[in-house]
Amino acid sequence: MTLEETARGIRTMEIRGAGRIARAAVEALDAHAEALSPATLEEFRAGMRQAADILVATRPTAVSLPNAVRSVMRGLDRATTLNEARAALHERARDFIASSLNAVGSIASIGARHIRDGDVVMTHCNSEAALACIVEAHRQGKAIEVVATEVRPRNQGLLTIRTLNDAGIPTTYIVDSAARSFVNRADLVIVGADAVTANGAVVNKIGTATIALAAHEARTNLVVAAETYKFAPVTALGDFVPIEERPPSEVLPDEIAAALPHVRVRNPAFDVTPPEFVDLIFTEQGAIPPSMAWLIIRDHLGWSIDEFRRAAEGGGNRA
Amino acid sequence: MTLEETARGIRTMEIRGAGRIARAAVEALDAHAEALSPATLEEFRAGMRQAADILVATRPTAVSLPNAVRSVMRGLDRATTLNEARAALHERARDFIASSLNAVGSIASIGARHIRDGDVVMTHCNSEAALACIVEAHRQGKAIEVVATEVRPRNQGLLTIRTLNDAGIPTTYIVDSAARSFVNRADLVIVGADAVTANGAVVNKIGTATIALAAHEARTNLVVAAETYKFAPVTALGDFVPIEERPPSEVLPDEIAAALPHVRVRNPAFDVTPPEFVDLIFTEQGAIPPSMAWLIIRDHLGWSIDEFRRAAEGGGNRA
Amino acid sequence: MTLEETARGIRTMEIRGAGRIARAAVEALDAHAEALSPATLEEFRAGMRQAADILVATRPTAVSLPNAVRSVMRGLDRATTLNEARAALHERARDFIASSLNAVGSIASIGARHIRDGDVVMTHCNSEAALACIVEAHRQGKAIEVVATEVRPRNQGLLTIRTLNDAGIPTTYIVDSAARSFVNRADLVIVGADAVTANGAVVNKIGTATIALAAHEARTNLVVAAETYKFAPVTALGDFVPIEERPPSEVLPDEIAAALPHVRVRNPAFDVTPPEFVDLIFTEQGAIPPSMAWLIIRDHLGWSIDEFRRAAEGGGNRA
Amino acid sequence: MTLEETARGIRTMEIRGAGRIARAAVEALDAHAEALSPATLEEFRAGMRQAADILVATRPTAVSLPNAVRSVMRGLDRATTLNEARAALHERARDFIASSLNAVGSIASIGARHIRDGDVVMTHCNSEAALACIVEAHRQGKAIEVVATEVRPRNQGLLTIRTLNDAGIPTTYIVDSAARSFVNRADLVIVGADAVTANGAVVNKIGTATIALAAHEARTNLVVAAETYKFAPVTALGDFVPIEERPPSEVLPDEIAAALPHVRVRNPAFDVTPPEFVDLIFTEQGAIPPSMAWLIIRDHLGWSIDEFRRAAEGGGNRA
Amino acid sequence: MTLEETARGIRTMEIRGAGRIARAAVEALDAHAEALSPATLEEFRAGMRQAADILVATRPTAVSLPNAVRSVMRGLDRATTLNEARAALHERARDFIASSLNAVGSIASIGARHIRDGDVVMTHCNSEAALACIVEAHRQGKAIEVVATEVRPRNQGLLTIRTLNDAGIPTTYIVDSAARSFVNRADLVIVGADAVTANGAVVNKIGTATIALAAHEARTNLVVAAETYKFAPVTALGDFVPIEERPPSEVLPDEIAAALPHVRVRNPAFDVTPPEFVDLIFTEQGAIPPSMAWLIIRDHLGWSIDEFRRAAEGGGNRA
Amino acid sequence: MTLEETARGIRTMEIRGAGRIARAAVEALDAHAEALSPATLEEFRAGMRQAADILVATRPTAVSLPNAVRSVMRGLDRATTLNEARAALHERARDFIASSLNAVGSIASIGARHIRDGDVVMTHCNSEAALACIVEAHRQGKAIEVVATEVRPRNQGLLTIRTLNDAGIPTTYIVDSAARSFVNRADLVIVGADAVTANGAVVNKIGTATIALAAHEARTNLVVAAETYKFAPVTALGDFVPIEERPPSEVLPDEIAAALPHVRVRNPAFDVTPPEFVDLIFTEQGAIPPSMAWLIIRDHLGWSIDEFRRAAEGGGNRA
Repeated sequence: MTLEETARGIRTMEIRGAGRIARAAVEALDAHAEALSPATLEEFRAGMRQAADILVATRPTAVSLPNAVRSVMRGLDRATTLNEARAALHERARDFIASSLNAVGSIASIGARHIRDGDVVMTHCNSEAALACIVEAHRQGKAIEVVATEVRPRNQGLLTIRTLNDAGIPTTYIVDSAARSFVNRADLVIVGADAVTANGAVVNKIGTATIALAAHEARTNLVVAAETYKFAPVTALGDFVPIEERPPSEVLPDEIAAALPHVRVRNPAFDVTPPEFVDLIFTEQGAIPPSMAWLIIRDHLGWSIDEFRRAAEGGGNRA
Repeated sequence: MTLEETARGIRTMEIRGAGRIARAAVEALDAHAEALSPATLEEFRAGMRQAADILVATRPTAVSLPNAVRSVMRGLDRATTLNEARAALHERARDFIASSLNAVGSIASIGARHIRDGDVVMTHCNSEAALACIVEAHRQGKAIEVVATEVRPRNQGLLTIRTLNDAGIPTTYIVDSAARSFVNRADLVIVGADAVTANGAVVNKIGTATIALAAHEARTNLVVAAETYKFAPVTALGDFVPIEERPPSEVLPDEIAAALPHVRVRNPAFDVTPPEFVDLIFTEQGAIPPSMAWLIIRDHLGWSIDEFRRAAEGGGNRA
Repeated sequence: MTLEETARGIRTMEIRGAGRIARAAVEALDAHAEALSPATLEEFRAGMRQAADILVATRPTAVSLPNAVRSVMRGLDRATTLNEARAALHERARDFIASSLNAVGSIASIGARHIRDGDVVMTHCNSEAALACIVEAHRQGKAIEVVATEVRPRNQGLLTIRTLNDAGIPTTYIVDSAARSFVNRADLVIVGADAVTANGAVVNKIGTATIALAAHEARTNLVVAAETYKFAPVTALGDFVPIEERPPSEVLPDEIAAALPHVRVRNPAFDVTPPEFVDLIFTEQGAIPPSMAWLIIRDHLGWSIDEFRRAAEGGGNRA
Repeated sequence: MTLEETARGIRTMEIRGAGRIARAAVEALDAHAEALSPATLEEFRAGMRQAADILVATRPTAVSLPNAVRSVMRGLDRATTLNEARAALHERARDFIASSLNAVGSIASIGARHIRDGDVVMTHCNSEAALACIVEAHRQGKAIEVVATEVRPRNQGLLTIRTLNDAGIPTTYIVDSAARSFVNRADLVIVGADAVTANGAVVNKIGTATIALAAHEARTNLVVAAETYKFAPVTALGDFVPIEERPPSEVLPDEIAAALPHVRVRNPAFDVTPPEFVDLIFTEQGAIPPSMAWLIIRDHLGWSIDEFRRAAEGGGNRA
Repeated sequence: MTLEETARGIRTMEIRGAGRIARAAVEALDAHAEALSPATLEEFRAGMRQAADILVATRPTAVSLPNAVRSVMRGLDRATTLNEARAALHERARDFIASSLNAVGSIASIGARHIRDGDVVMTHCNSEAALACIVEAHRQGKAIEVVATEVRPRNQGLLTIRTLNDAGIPTTYIVDSAARSFVNRADLVIVGADAVTANGAVVNKIGTATIALAAHEARTNLVVAAETYKFAPVTALGDFVPIEERPPSEVLPDEIAAALPHVRVRNPAFDVTPPEFVDLIFTEQGAIPPSMAWLIIRDHLGWSIDEFRRAAEGGGNRA
Repeated sequence: MTLEETARGIRTMEIRGAGRIARAAVEALDAHAEALSPATLEEFRAGMRQAADILVATRPTAVSLPNAVRSVMRGLDRATTLNEARAALHERARDFIASSLNAVGSIASIGARHIRDGDVVMTHCNSEAALACIVEAHRQGKAIEVVATEVRPRNQGLLTIRTLNDAGIPTTYIVDSAARSFVNRADLVIVGADAVTANGAVVNKIGTATIALAAHEARTNLVVAAETYKFAPVTALGDFVPIEERPPSEVLPDEIAAALPHVRVRNPAFDVTPPEFVDLIFTEQGAIPPSMAWLIIRDHLGWSIDEFRRAAEGGGNRA
């Protein structure tokens, strides 16, 4: 795929999912570097920056996108020759893709250690990383049970219970609003994340924050499984992670809504779980407390305050 | 309807709803008293007690049933002649029915005073009494908005938004698990009750306790609208109010469930909101704090500890 | 004073203070009964009800007024002759006045028992009853210290520290917003009340609820000293106690305000302390938990739900 | 036993335990009434009051004593002849003793309803009433487990685990400070009480309040089993229940203490659990919320505010 | 100004305010370096250390002072020649001053992103940085309202509402103790800081901690605007930030105080808001969670544990 | 001692205590390096790794052991010649031992700064580092009092009060379950730690978490004194710190237990205090908030995620 094709694919949501978006952008950059024939290192840098800006601008709310692009582009920082730059960029692209593909496996291995034999584990929505922890614990021979929620309005809980059923894990399926009735008997809640903010708040599927509150009320630990590319650099600049509002028709069929002129549907896709309800975040870099999110953004993802600024102010318009 | 017909109607759930069950039982007792031709006051008392036991035994989990029966039967307590007893019983039956029919109106008038001009009011499920408060406040010219939940698995929220739409009240409709995202901007949460226990806990549609918890977290007041016949005398004996578990198929279609042998659906109809999350309970007898529930049971419903015992131990087997 | 004079005095705030308003109304009713020359008991009742309605209508926000009037008027309930009615009304008027005058003394004696030797006691505003408890404990020889706040905007704290200084009690004087810095070392907070609601919430000088919150955070007990005629019957109907908004000039001199067109002053006189922050309320009837407020209104003040209604709907327009 | 013998027995702690003290005092009053030969009703009343004062003065901290004496002495209130008075007093004495002896059985039957099949129940100290609830639930065939604490410094936990072992109930025995490590998995905490105050606080063996706090943190319900004669009337006057401080040697052997001049042992026998940590109190009169304690004192025990005063000011010095 | 003049100016509080003190000290060091004519690098280092010690000793409670001095003096660490040392020191001085002057602008730009269109923002005291965030958000066209407190005893709220009025921002002005009555409707609280401790606690104007507590109770976010030179290195050694106690006459005029011998005024200038009440701290280095304060001290300000020790033990006496 | 002797000493618990275990392992490595005669740097590395694995495997639950071994072994990382490697390893061994021996002194000096004149300090168990802080504050002339607990089942409180008595510090000695009765009057709680986890939770003597909870309830600060080698690297991989269960006979004599077949003793040695109850951790590297624990593990102890993995997967089996 050319850069333009990838950019279009991300923009039109043909390419979806934090991990796949990230890897597609990285591959596009790698291919673009191959395709360019710059005369000088500076020309190469300029060309690549332009490409990076195009990619980042495709979906401003995708947290993994600037992280992935930034990760590759750092290869240009120390290069002193054109060849060095090309090589560094290529190596970083390869590393990012490998690490991204391995991340869920690493998280599963880390998260499974936190699940004990005999535990009742509650989960919400359909997080690949969270489920991987549960399935890995089961695979290790721990006798566990899972409580899974329905996840209105799109019922992703159905996918979750299929995965768990296929793994042979005894699972209880409940409506979302029954979570407080079950969480007091659970030993652990484990969820995924769409984004983790600089102060350790977790942006995840609507309903997560409520379950986290109920878990906190019942002294049940809550842990989050999230690849580090989901940590949101813009929040280190004071930005909120934007909460996507999805179509009303997911909640109320249009024909019914049409007959109810005084009724408006609100359908936020995510909510924000405050860090005080989160015990640990399992990343492929280890199990960190939510208070370390800022450090992950700064040290592991490698964002400096000035890069935050440039990213936040949208470098894309320079192209 | 004969006593037997009414008893059957309640048992088979043909007769449903706390208010309708209560009134049907009262009418059956009244008709039964008419039909009996006892020789002595004692014979009359014995015959009526037998009838009362039959009715109470039809649905052990219906809180309004023993309250209604007890309310009528107290007419026999002070009677010294057969005629007095018949008259007292008839009068009490008439009073109970009138008061039951008027209760929602009284509650609406009381509850509406607690809603201020400009308030955003959240509600859950489809409580006649709670909605009556909201509609009455709107009728009084207060500019209010409502946030209403979907109420899985049976989607009673649809009924609620129809009522609100018909009344011309601007309403926001959300999935249950979005409640915490909206409750911080709400000024008041108002819900109904299936039962109120001796220590002021509120048994209501699944999800209520979670919304109450989130309201408490956000310093948003929560009030309950409930007729006094919903106060549960058995709880004054230490009993729990039984939580009905409804069919799994309400949550997961049977054909899907059949393919998932490791998955079990749990579908509790209610949950229990602890009294510390409840600010006031609006009854037809006034606005009471939850801590007064025991007094309502003892003084207003007129249960003594020995009657609790007799009721709890199931007088019905004496017949 | 004639009924009209008293009514005018209350309306114009010449007669002020919960206790003085209550006693003035009672005296006016007593004198009015003396002045009437009805032909029948019914005529007497009608005349007195009219007088009562006039008085209650003078200041709808004075909680003690309907309580005082109701207390006297109950004398008419059981009278079967005109003479009995006059006598009962007179006796109740006399009793009310005596009990009102003695109430602070009784509260002081009750409240002082709750203060221990060596205690540091915090108070807010200038409550006669709260100070009486403190002074009485000191008089009994207990070595106590007081922390008193300034109480912006009207600086009633100055009156408080004068009273405490005159009693020779070591006192620390602080600005209102320093209360949290001192409450952790205090052993008890004691405040008065302008009104107590049916669910045990305490309406008192602005700032009270904040101190109560800070006391709760620091596990410091908070008690309230309040005569029973401050318990607000209308709240048993779901009403809020209205929060008086006082002149902006108390907070910001008019000449400064005039130069600040974008600035608006808000000056609520009271706030509402929720019952969960109140340990005990000391009344002349004993030390009650806040949850008993409804019972005080119903049993001690003698309000029935129908009287609430009549009072709330403003009988005054019948005059 | 003569009045004097009983008084001495209570004073010297030969007669111990809230129930036994109460019954001994009642028997002594009954016998004393028999022994008196008054000429008039007034003389009888005076003689009995003197006797009552003597008994009440023997142990000012025993909550059950004034309750028991008060219960019997109320027989004198309505009597119009000497014979009536004797009869009423005797009947009340008999009733009190019967009710006291039956109280634990009633509480057990009430409390056992609150324990569900499969529950893990935690208890602290060695309360006859609390254990009776547990044993009764077990007797009814419910499969329960108990977690019992050691109860330093007097190790009453040993008595508790013997009772539970004899009943064949699986029991886990832990040190007091391990309670928080186990309470999250418990379904219910059940304890007894030495006294219940007017605002529903529970005075019980040192450590109870800490377990209550930990139960609250973990959303584990806590219930109290207590006969109504343990409700403390003086607290309705604002008094604290005095916390007995027991000998240091219970905690630290005197020979060790002697070598540690800078060390002082404090050994309070009880602590105070605030009402917000108590879900229900099981009494022989039913299951009440803690907020109803004041009503039990006023209505069931029959104390008026003036009697509180007289009792609190120590009628004993009149003898 | 010579070093001595600057030192005197800081000592006598002619030079005031965290930022101005810091910049004056840096300028003094820079000028002093210019003025010295050392023979060797070591002599230069010794002379500069002496100067640094003199400056730091002028106001031991000024948090920005050691940070500023430390920042400049680090220029000496890696220099290997006298010229390098002079140049590095000069460059660092210039950088510090520029960054300090720009800091408020950076914070405003970061903080304004956190304020949403339609927000009601509460503030306390008169923080330049906090106000800059608000004014910047307004400048960006967001429709915001502000609630500002009076800030007894020095009424800095007057300055605040003047600034807000000049900017044309609709503002509500309230007494300090009314904050809890308004914070539930606010969307955000933003305050400044006098110091931030190693564990993220915020030392700020008296009253801040109470508002933070009330914001926490109402689930209203609280953010802090603070330049990084306000982060207190000594606290990383376990020290408290000293709370300045200001003259009693600010609270109570001396002539009134003189007449009240039992009354003592306490007038702490600051209080300490615990980190769990703080959502984010906006610094010129980005938006950090309070838990990152220690890292700011260590990595950004560049303090090592041994330097903490030397600073804390007062190097000044070596001069 | 040879490597084998040391390994055996640690395995058999002859060598006990986090500090002594750590230093013994370091000395053994140092001696082993001396004893080896490798031909190449690689051979030396291999030999030392084998030795390290043997030592780490001796007590998998000793947190200080892998930290100590890791600290020394890092000396091999950058060495390019055999001599360099030997020298670096030796230097690191010497440094570790010196720093370990000095750590308590450093902590005492840091912790004492946090204790104010006049403070009442509560402690639990017998932590050398916590007591050192207290004794140092006393030595500095601060008038402090201590409340110390008994610490069942092994009564380590006796050691604590002996130390405090010897230092002449006024001390109150209480049973563990009385802590909540005293903590409200305490100004500070200071305890030690057996381990600190990656998210700042503190593993310490059973009872610590309960006292921390009660301190939190009473707004009393809690601080922890812990050497950095107690920070647990495995927890950064998601592992729990294992809670050792000690012999039942410590709680219940075997002869009693034998007679109680339905009773099982549980005797966990430690519990886990969540980070939200911990204000600061005093280490020899300064006073850190609990949220910094992960950084201490990563930066100060120098563990990378891959080393966590290797350590967690038990390199020992390679030997």
